[in-house]
Amino acid sequence: MARKRARELDISIGRFKTGRHNAITDVAGVRVGHVTVVEGDSVRTGVTAIVPHDRNVFKEKVPAAVHVINGYGKSLGLAQVEELGEIETPICLTNTLNIWRAADAMLDYMIRENPDGGSFNVVCGECNDGFLNDIKARAVTAEHVIEALDKAASGHVDEGCVGAGTGMRGFGFKAGIGTSSRVADVNGAEYTAGVLVLTNTGYAQELRVDGVPVGRLLQAEGEPEDKGSIMIIVATDAPVDSRQLTRLAKRAAFGLARAGGTAGHGSGDFVIAFAVPDAKSALLDDRSGADKLFVPVIEATEEAIINSLFMAEPTTGRDGHHMDAIPAERVKELVQERC
Amino acid sequence: MARKRARELDISIGRFKTGRHNAITDVAGVRVGHVTVVEGDSVRTGVTAIVPHDRNVFKEKVPAAVHVINGYGKSLGLAQVEELGEIETPICLTNTLNIWRAADAMLDYMIRENPDGGSFNVVCGECNDGFLNDIKARAVTAEHVIEALDKAASGHVDEGCVGAGTGMRGFGFKAGIGTSSRVADVNGAEYTAGVLVLTNTGYAQELRVDGVPVGRLLQAEGEPEDKGSIMIIVATDAPVDSRQLTRLAKRAAFGLARAGGTAGHGSGDFVIAFAVPDAKSALLDDRSGADKLFVPVIEATEEAIINSLFMAEPTTGRDGHHMDAIPAERVKELVQERC
Amino acid sequence: MARKRARELDISIGRFKTGRHNAITDVAGVRVGHVTVVEGDSVRTGVTAIVPHDRNVFKEKVPAAVHVINGYGKSLGLAQVEELGEIETPICLTNTLNIWRAADAMLDYMIRENPDGGSFNVVCGECNDGFLNDIKARAVTAEHVIEALDKAASGHVDEGCVGAGTGMRGFGFKAGIGTSSRVADVNGAEYTAGVLVLTNTGYAQELRVDGVPVGRLLQAEGEPEDKGSIMIIVATDAPVDSRQLTRLAKRAAFGLARAGGTAGHGSGDFVIAFAVPDAKSALLDDRSGADKLFVPVIEATEEAIINSLFMAEPTTGRDGHHMDAIPAERVKELVQERC
Amino acid sequence: MARKRARELDISIGRFKTGRHNAITDVAGVRVGHVTVVEGDSVRTGVTAIVPHDRNVFKEKVPAAVHVINGYGKSLGLAQVEELGEIETPICLTNTLNIWRAADAMLDYMIRENPDGGSFNVVCGECNDGFLNDIKARAVTAEHVIEALDKAASGHVDEGCVGAGTGMRGFGFKAGIGTSSRVADVNGAEYTAGVLVLTNTGYAQELRVDGVPVGRLLQAEGEPEDKGSIMIIVATDAPVDSRQLTRLAKRAAFGLARAGGTAGHGSGDFVIAFAVPDAKSALLDDRSGADKLFVPVIEATEEAIINSLFMAEPTTGRDGHHMDAIPAERVKELVQERC
Repeated sequence: MARKRARELDISIGRFKTGRHNAITDVAGVRVGHVTVVEGDSVRTGVTAIVPHDRNVFKEKVPAAVHVINGYGKSLGLAQVEELGEIETPICLTNTLNIWRAADAMLDYMIRENPDGGSFNVVCGECNDGFLNDIKARAVTAEHVIEALDKAASGHVDEGCVGAGTGMRGFGFKAGIGTSSRVADVNGAEYTAGVLVLTNTGYAQELRVDGVPVGRLLQAEGEPEDKGSIMIIVATDAPVDSRQLTRLAKRAAFGLARAGGTAGHGSGDFVIAFAVPDAKSALLDDRSGADKLFVPVIEATEEAIINSLFMAEPTTGRDGHHMDAIPAERVKELVQERC
Repeated sequence: MARKRARELDISIGRFKTGRHNAITDVAGVRVGHVTVVEGDSVRTGVTAIVPHDRNVFKEKVPAAVHVINGYGKSLGLAQVEELGEIETPICLTNTLNIWRAADAMLDYMIRENPDGGSFNVVCGECNDGFLNDIKARAVTAEHVIEALDKAASGHVDEGCVGAGTGMRGFGFKAGIGTSSRVADVNGAEYTAGVLVLTNTGYAQELRVDGVPVGRLLQAEGEPEDKGSIMIIVATDAPVDSRQLTRLAKRAAFGLARAGGTAGHGSGDFVIAFAVPDAKSALLDDRSGADKLFVPVIEATEEAIINSLFMAEPTTGRDGHHMDAIPAERVKELVQERC
Repeated sequence: MARKRARELDISIGRFKTGRHNAITDVAGVRVGHVTVVEGDSVRTGVTAIVPHDRNVFKEKVPAAVHVINGYGKSLGLAQVEELGEIETPICLTNTLNIWRAADAMLDYMIRENPDGGSFNVVCGECNDGFLNDIKARAVTAEHVIEALDKAASGHVDEGCVGAGTGMRGFGFKAGIGTSSRVADVNGAEYTAGVLVLTNTGYAQELRVDGVPVGRLLQAEGEPEDKGSIMIIVATDAPVDSRQLTRLAKRAAFGLARAGGTAGHGSGDFVIAFAVPDAKSALLDDRSGADKLFVPVIEATEEAIINSLFMAEPTTGRDGHHMDAIPAERVKELVQERC
Repeated sequence: MARKRARELDISIGRFKTGRHNAITDVAGVRVGHVTVVEGDSVRTGVTAIVPHDRNVFKEKVPAAVHVINGYGKSLGLAQVEELGEIETPICLTNTLNIWRAADAMLDYMIRENPDGGSFNVVCGECNDGFLNDIKARAVTAEHVIEALDKAASGHVDEGCVGAGTGMRGFGFKAGIGTSSRVADVNGAEYTAGVLVLTNTGYAQELRVDGVPVGRLLQAEGEPEDKGSIMIIVATDAPVDSRQLTRLAKRAAFGLARAGGTAGHGSGDFVIAFAVPDAKSALLDDRSGADKLFVPVIEATEEAIINSLFMAEPTTGRDGHHMDAIPAERVKELVQERC
């Protein structure tokens, strides 16, 4: 049975309207590419690329920021983003032990696109899919990474068990990639905030869907520990600088909390935010402008996490390990009874 | 009609058990003192003191940490707490424009207790009660501050419109002081995490009580902006150091998010955490120990915020401004219908 | 005998040219005001105000940043400067135990200038002059603070034992206020970086003057501990934002290091940087622009510290405590022999 | 003619005594391994491994901290070190574009040593040797990295053009690896602080040797920009925790400043500090203990940088690019004339 997004199940998170695709790609220019790597009984992994715009990112760097919710993770490139307030490469997500190979492949891609460049601050994030995936195989190759970057497209974004999400799990269920977006009116102009998550975190009993304690109600049994991590990518077309993007990135943590995330000791929870505004726009004021994107980012993050569960298929992988999908129709009932 | 705490309304947040008083004072040695300052039609303010232990805090400094959720606030003493990982004075909370006078009064108190000392890192936090209170009167005097410090007591903690909470509001209703605690089993030992909040933040429509979107259901009308701030004090008797306390402090933000907080631009949201462990205890390990306090801190913060609303009385103040109390029985119904 | 500045002693630090006054006031609009408070045998203190521009600072906030070199200090207002990247009040410097009273007086001043305002993020720094000054007297009154703010002027800046510098000491000698400036050519435009320091730090044997180990050569005997602190204020007319100002602020630490500073445990070493660019200027690029102000800030900080020693008079204060002035002519000889 | 260390040229930096080897390996257990990779006319690079102790580092993690002086760099693993305050792998240094391959090789090594482990926070730093080295060749292989880790030894440490230092330059001259150590008496106990640097930073005209402005006196001509970076590794056998190690790491920046470093825009300047105390020691107090290591760390960093220049041989590499060695005997004369 085909998996459905939250809104297809009549679960609508929050009070702001979504963009057209309810996806990070609603921010004009942003593209997403997945390569799913499934081999034999044990390899369940992949790579997901997020490309900020349609032009040469190294030559047209974009304002960016990082927020580390819990730093038990291996994300690459953060210090330079923080120092310079900009990002100069696409962002790739993959599994923990593949991150350095993926980064090296991103370098191949960056050199291909910028033969004259001599230094590239590759930004790459990871979660640990080692329960379902033979993570020590480091099955994501340079070709996979470059393919994900090259095929990144605007419009519809696949969710669930695709790309880096292939082998992930969270809140006691199969998880993976999820996305959502919100549109905010800021003093008469419309700006979009889009979020893409790679979910691999969360105690089963803490899961909330639109505030409903679904984890508790389902009596889901999960791991006793909250290990695994989440990568949250926030994009906006609002004219904001890196300091303001840091503020937006911090609000993504509120969306994680609303979904029941607790940032457990072993969960590497990182937010990377970037802006691709129209070059002619003046920066938003903090007081009457950037502030209006805070709740939209919270809502988009919460819904992206819910989508990353709803869209994930049940999966069997390494050593016969299995993760069930969240029972979407049952969750729909639980939520509807209470909202 | 007497106000009731969440649990008196059969609203129980989370899965961990509370301490005896369900208050920050469940952490042995922690004391709380309030002085409420109400004068004429316009002064609605006060001061709340949190004292880490029964001995001389300057001579027996305690491990401490700070987490700034949103830095639009005037809290004092943070840099030294971060540098040295310890706190050497009690913590006082008051209104924004009184904070420097309150700090100066804390200095009087510190010198009184430590005549030989020559430098004291006074820690003081604030929220802006200017809607109900004539804040420019700076009505909290040195005597009030010292009285709050001197009367600080263990056991029961008054909540709502007391001390620094007298003139605060949040989520569209009258707010103030709230507290809660949780007890966690860590490898066979029981440790308590207690939280005290001074709530003055939150959009009316975002309020959640145990996940139920009470703000939306009540169609509460509040300010269009999320201004005002929240101070969150976290105490624990677990043997943790300042780095680990930073991790606990960050989880308090998750409790704020669960209650519907969004850390709006104008909301100065600060967490100050300290530990008063038994001196003989070895530090907890991050992996199997400190981690077990994360969810307890989240739950205690969430419930403390809810208590700060439930326990607050309707209040009229400056220029006839009025804030209603949250309709507790109606909220109880809304929550019970859905849980 | 009148004290002389470094350049009057033919000691020229660095390779960039100075502004007209070789002072922070070379940044157009920046004003400095001192009130020196000397009473009887024991009070040796004061207050120094730095005002960013000639207009209403609260209404025309300026980009600002903070860098904490060593956080053993009580500086006020830092969190909001970091969050919003701006400063909305002048900056005052005074003694440690007077900082909260000075801040409260700044509030009086801010309300006087902005009767409609309801919240002000007062920025105030301190060093501990308790060796020469009866610091517990908190002798700096509200009137002193407001006088310093009101009399703040452009042009020449008094140095040494004036204002907040009255009772300070450093590197084994009497110290106090010092200032210096540098002018940089950035792609054809001239920008000024000015620094004002309140020096109260440094081991005697570590002092360097233009690299010459003057402390060692003088066999100066000082305290065995590096206590006391330094406040460093950096101003520029270059069009830079708060992130870039953070980078400038960090370079001030390099100037401190060049002068022999070591940021001892008990030394609260804070940098506050702000920009007052021409409103029409586009932000400088990090790569080819802001970078060109790094060495100028280092040099101006180093020279400001040297000036704060050279310009300080010998002083006797509390309990007959005495600090000699640095023997300027002898230092001049030591430096000239070696350069 | 054989290159000489600073002390062999009678240049003694600072007032603390050195350890036996005047090297990071004076901290008992610390080992260093270099693999130099020179191929044909264009490859001038390598890898340097620093191993904290003789046992399994993953199983016996050590307290650690990070300080980012200027974040224009690609160092890996920093976020987890900051979150957990510990390091669980050796540290490798290499060239910028090789860093991800080196990290992936470190993973091979970690898995070899810990077959049961599923996640490793590899810590790896880099500088850009692209002037002398064909950096896009990524000539450092997995074998090189593992060889450096396996051959890491205590005792004497090679300096200059070895390992990661092979192709580096700084302050207008050929640079590379340098090391130094200091021994401090802390309340009767002797503790050692050792520093190893990979120098690839610095304006020619800013170089100071023991305070003498050697760069200016030599009229050295260097690049107009301060690009290139420095990695600074600090080790100590003092019983300090991660917060205290952060304080030590920050003092390394003071040593860089003393040598004339300015942390230019394009210079990625990172400090990684770790402690390998005797397991039975109680933590040092900040006030009377850890503080006594500040100046030793400053001095060891300054001398390590000077050694990294003095020990480097003139080198010709990619496209015939050439870097002269610093004229050591001439510098010795300049310094002796002035000290």
